[in-house]
This record gives sequence, structure tokens and C-alpha cells, in this order.
Amino acid sequence: MSTEHLFAVVMAGGSGTRFWPLSRRLRPKQLLALAEKDRTLLASTIERVSPLVPPERVLIVTGQHLAEATRNAAPSLPHANVLAEPIAKNTAPCVAWAAYHALARDPDAILAVLAADHFVVDRAAYLQVIGRAVEAAADGSLVTVGIKPTRPETGYGYLEVGGEVGPGFSHTVLRFVEKPSHDTAIEFVRSGRFLWNSGQFFFRADAIVRAFEAHMPELASAMSAVRSATSSDQEARIVEAAYASARAISIDHGVMEKADKVRVIPGDFGWSDVGSWTTSWELAPRDASDNAGPALVVDARGNYVHAPAGKVVALLGVEDLVIVDTPDALLVMPRSRAQDVRAVVDALKGKRDDVL
Amino acid sequence: MSTEHLFAVVMAGGSGTRFWPLSRRLRPKQLLALAEKDRTLLASTIERVSPLVPPERVLIVTGQHLAEATRNAAPSLPHANVLAEPIAKNTAPCVAWAAYHALARDPDAILAVLAADHFVVDRAAYLQVIGRAVEAAADGSLVTVGIKPTRPETGYGYLEVGGEVGPGFSHTVLRFVEKPSHDTAIEFVRSGRFLWNSGQFFFRADAIVRAFEAHMPELASAMSAVRSATSSDQEARIVEAAYASARAISIDHGVMEKADKVRVIPGDFGWSDVGSWTTSWELAPRDASDNAGPALVVDARGNYVHAPAGKVVALLGVEDLVIVDTPDALLVMPRSRAQDVRAVVDALKGKRDDVL
Repeated sequence: MSTEHLFAVVMAGGSGTRFWPLSRRLRPKQLLALAEKDRTLLASTIERVSPLVPPERVLIVTGQHLAEATRNAAPSLPHANVLAEPIAKNTAPCVAWAAYHALARDPDAILAVLAADHFVVDRAAYLQVIGRAVEAAADGSLVTVGIKPTRPETGYGYLEVGGEVGPGFSHTVLRFVEKPSHDTAIEFVRSGRFLWNSGQFFFRADAIVRAFEAHMPELASAMSAVRSATSSDQEARIVEAAYASARAISIDHGVMEKADKVRVIPGDFGWSDVGSWTTSWELAPRDASDNAGPALVVDARGNYVHAPAGKVVALLGVEDLVIVDTPDALLVMPRSRAQDVRAVVDALKGKRDDVL
Repeated sequence: MSTEHLFAVVMAGGSGTRFWPLSRRLRPKQLLALAEKDRTLLASTIERVSPLVPPERVLIVTGQHLAEATRNAAPSLPHANVLAEPIAKNTAPCVAWAAYHALARDPDAILAVLAADHFVVDRAAYLQVIGRAVEAAADGSLVTVGIKPTRPETGYGYLEVGGEVGPGFSHTVLRFVEKPSHDTAIEFVRSGRFLWNSGQFFFRADAIVRAFEAHMPELASAMSAVRSATSSDQEARIVEAAYASARAISIDHGVMEKADKVRVIPGDFGWSDVGSWTTSWELAPRDASDNAGPALVVDARGNYVHAPAGKVVALLGVEDLVIVDTPDALLVMPRSRAQDVRAVVDALKGKRDDVL
């Protein structure tokens, strides 16, 4: 497989309120070291694909308010490789911009569209799957990577494939299914015909552009001039206008679900979307009593602690809590409530915006 | 009742590890505002008796390492009224020193020996009881104040009186009982003949000196020269020698349990020994869901929070926890474990002495 035309497009526009109080408006999830010590999720993402994609061909798409912090978190990238969106409009405009931008650099560009805030345990297995996805994209297919489900997770989207997922490489996607009910999820897992949608996409830039032209023609039309922009200022003006008129819609809904030739590569490499503090607990090294994080523990089990370096956190007799301490805000909740952190953030809005 | 000879002797030598991480070696319980906003327990104690005892006749006995902080916490007192013990030897040497010191100032001195770290809700009722105790001490009796028990508390000492505790003023104490078992405590409360030992004592200075001479003659002998010391330097040298040879024993064990003419005044004024963070929760104003302290609460009940001013503490879905946050240490435990904080302090010894 030749990778000389391969660009990584890292989508890094998330706000990630579920990791408050560590995450803040100007320090969202992808800029936090939530899975590995001292390495942000964004840096892990870039590092993970580095055997296939050098920094010069890594594009990061993020919000303008995060551009500086993002460049600081990815110092090996050329300054111009951070594409700063004027306004958040979900992932379809983001992918469209990246596709036209890459085409301007290389008419044969192939894109690996990756989330900035996911985590992979087995990098070697991951690279193998990526390689297969890139190969499968060579004929103009729109390719995604599906994760073999290990539980009836209701927080993910699912992909249904034609037959039972076999050891083969590539399957046709019959349909995308949004977060299912618990009963439906159980059925999906039992059937063997469903994969988790990992939100990673692989396609030739010209192929996805054709798909935008077919399924989101206004966006394609507004963005296409990026391909022939002669300066970054000119590109910025085109992008600003395109985003202003763009619908806020995901690449899944806007294009993938409607397109032909959508294929999926099954992957099994220890994938996590790092969806909440509970995931951080699952990914972290734990003591014999299942506590994770820097805590002094007396009769306590199953807790996750995040705290500033040097601070003593003492847990006495508590179980299955998440405790996240920062200099100006502290959160305490059961692990089982980690999906509800947004309720806390909402309650603080307008009252303590200084800690959001 | 004449109070012109009345001295308050405030015993302020406690270390109070049960209030870690707010309490530290150099900032023990009595120097914390645990029951009233912005007022230390020590300051409350002095304020409470101020209608009977002016600052000039308030003596505070504390450890040398706490002398400066104690003087700062009681700025109305003359510098010399803080008696700094060279070494902690429980309460008997402390009371002996205070008795001889007071006698040197006033041969007719009457002492009200008070704990620096307790709390009283009804001050007017308290002052009435104090007045009766002082009156009862006039004839040379050793007088204590007993609290009518409201529950079979196993954490307190009890006083058994001759008959059922009536509305009368003073009862002869038959015996002192250390912290009883739960079954014994239930029996005590049912019998109506037991009172909680509140650790407050009232006696003429010459009467307690005679009791020391009878029951702790070595201590009396070593300390008696304080009465005729001609300088604070000379007094310090006498005290240092007396403490060096003194047995570490409480005034209860060393004298009160052995003495004749021990009487008790029953009191009912909302007394608390502020024994743990659970007590702080009980004493604090609480919201409709029984949470106390400065927290942002979502689906949480029965929690107690102490945190630095301005810090956001968010509780999501947790119940009956104590959360004590300080800049360098954080403690999380169930309210029911508040008696066990010492285990945390012990675990930190030698590892993180900087937070003790």
C-alpha cells in the first residue's frame, strides 16, 4: 500500500463537557491527558498514525477559539495545518473543507478522517486496519472502521453489514443506526451483523467531494473554491462564507448514510471513545481494590481520582466514586453518573462561568 | 453570686486529628471555625463566659508550639494569660499549673475549667448552669457539669449520680464511667441516673490544690512553687521541671474520680463536643436535601462540604458524604466514617508530613 498521498484529518472541535471540571471551554477533552499519562488524546491520535502519515500531511480541524491551544498541543505540525473553523457546524462542513484543502495540495489525496479524542490500546492492530481501510478506499469507496461490539452499548451508533461479520476485510454497509435502545442493542450484538461506528472515515478526497456534490450540493458549491484559493486569507474568506450558510450536520447523516459504495473494515484493537470519567477509570491502572488515580486509600474501592500534582486526596470508606479536583473546582459523583456531568455544567452557567 | 474571683481556665492543648485535613499540627481543632461562621471554637468559648469572666481572668493552657497561634486567636487576652506547656501530659498537670498560677494572683480564686473545643447552642441556659456550678464550688466541693443524655452515645464518659436526676441543682457523683459499650449506654440512658461528662470543672483553686496534694502529691509538690514564683522566667523553669516528671493523666482519672465532695450540676443547653465532621454537619444550616456547606448540588443529599472560599464543589448523585477540601489535601468519606479520620492521618505519617 502506498501512503504518499495519505492525509490524516483530525477532527478536534469537540467541547467535551463530560470531563468538567478538568475540561474547560478553552481546554476541551482532546487537549487533556485522559488515557495516557502526560499525553493529550490529540497528541496520541497524531502519534498513532505517524508510521503512515508525517506531520506535514496531518490536518487538524478545530474551532478558532482553540486554534492556539491546538497548535501548542501539536507542535510538530506546520502552522497552516491547523484549520480553524469560524463556527461549529458539526462534522460535514469540517470534512468538506479538509477534502477541498487536501485536493488543493494533492489531486490524488486520500483522507483518513479521525476523531481527536478517542483512544486505541493496540496500535499495531490499529495500523493494520487503517492500512486495509486505505486500500479499500482506493477504488473510490467511502470506507469506515467498525468495532466488533463487546457489550450492548446504547451510547454508540451501529453499522449493519450484509452478512455475519467474518474474518474478511471489507463489508458493505447496509445502514447506519443511531444510539439504540437497550433491547435493540442486545439484539444487534447477538445477530453478529452489527459493528460499532467508530467515527473514522477513509476515502479519496475526490470521492468524498463527489459525494458532497451529490448529497450536500450547497455545501460543495460554497466550499469548492477552497481548491483554487491562492492565499490563506482568500481561503479563510471562502470558508467563512461557506460555514455561515452551511447546515450543521454530521458527515454520517449528511453523506455516509446516503452514499453508495460505503464499506466497513471490522477492527478489534481496543478502541474507546473515552466517553466519560468512567472510561478514564476503565483505561487507568488500578490497585488491588480497583481504585485508580493518585489517592491515599483506606477501606475504599472502585474509585477514580484526578487531582493536581502533589495534592493529597484521601479516600476513607467510599466506593465507586469519581473525584476530579482542580484548583478552582471539584466534582464528586458515583461512577454510574459520569454521563450526567453536563447537568452540573448547565447548573453553573451564568453563575460561575469562570470555572466553565 | 460574686464572680470577682472567678478565673476561666481554657484547656486548649488538643491536636484534633479527626478534623484533618482542615486541622493541622499548628492549626488544631480549637483554632478552627467548626461550629460558627468565622469564629473559632476557642473564641466562642471565651465569648460564651465573657459575661462572667473578663479577658484579664481568662487563662488559656496550650502547647508551646501553639502559643503564638493561640494568642492570635484570642487577641483580647493579656500575653501572660496564655500558659504554654513545655510538653503535653494530658489535663492533670495543666489544671495543677493553672490552679497554682491563679492562687498566685488571687488566694480566693475560683476556677472554671473549660474545654476550648466544645460548642454550646443556648448561651443563656449555659451561663445559668455555670453560675450554679460556681456557687456549688464555694464550699470547697469539686463540681462538674453533666449533660442529660439524649442518645446512648458510646463516645462519651458518663457520671453516675446518687438518685434519679431531678430538677434540683446539685448531685453527688457516685462514679465516673469511661466510654461504655452500646448495651451499657442504653442501660445508662434508661436508668435516668447517668449524665454525660462534659469535661468542665468548677472549684476553688485552694480546694483543687488540696485534692492534688491528696491524690497526686508528686505533681502538687513539683508545681507548688509556681505560687511564689517572682518572674515569668522563674515560673517557666518550675513548670518545665514539673512537666518533665509529671505523669500524663487526665484530671478525671488523677483527681476527680478519687476525691470526696464531687458534685455535678445537670445542664441542658445544647452541648456538643464537636467530635467529628459529622457533628459539624449536625450543627450547620442545611438545605432541603440535608446538604450543608458551599456546594453546587445535583441529585445529592445528606452531604457535608468544607472548601476554600470561592472554590466550586459540585456534588452529583452522592449521598451522606463528608468532603473536606483544602489547597493541599482533600478528604472524601461517608458521614458514618467520620470517627476514623485518624486512620488516614496515621497512613500519611512519614509519607506526607507536609500536610499533617
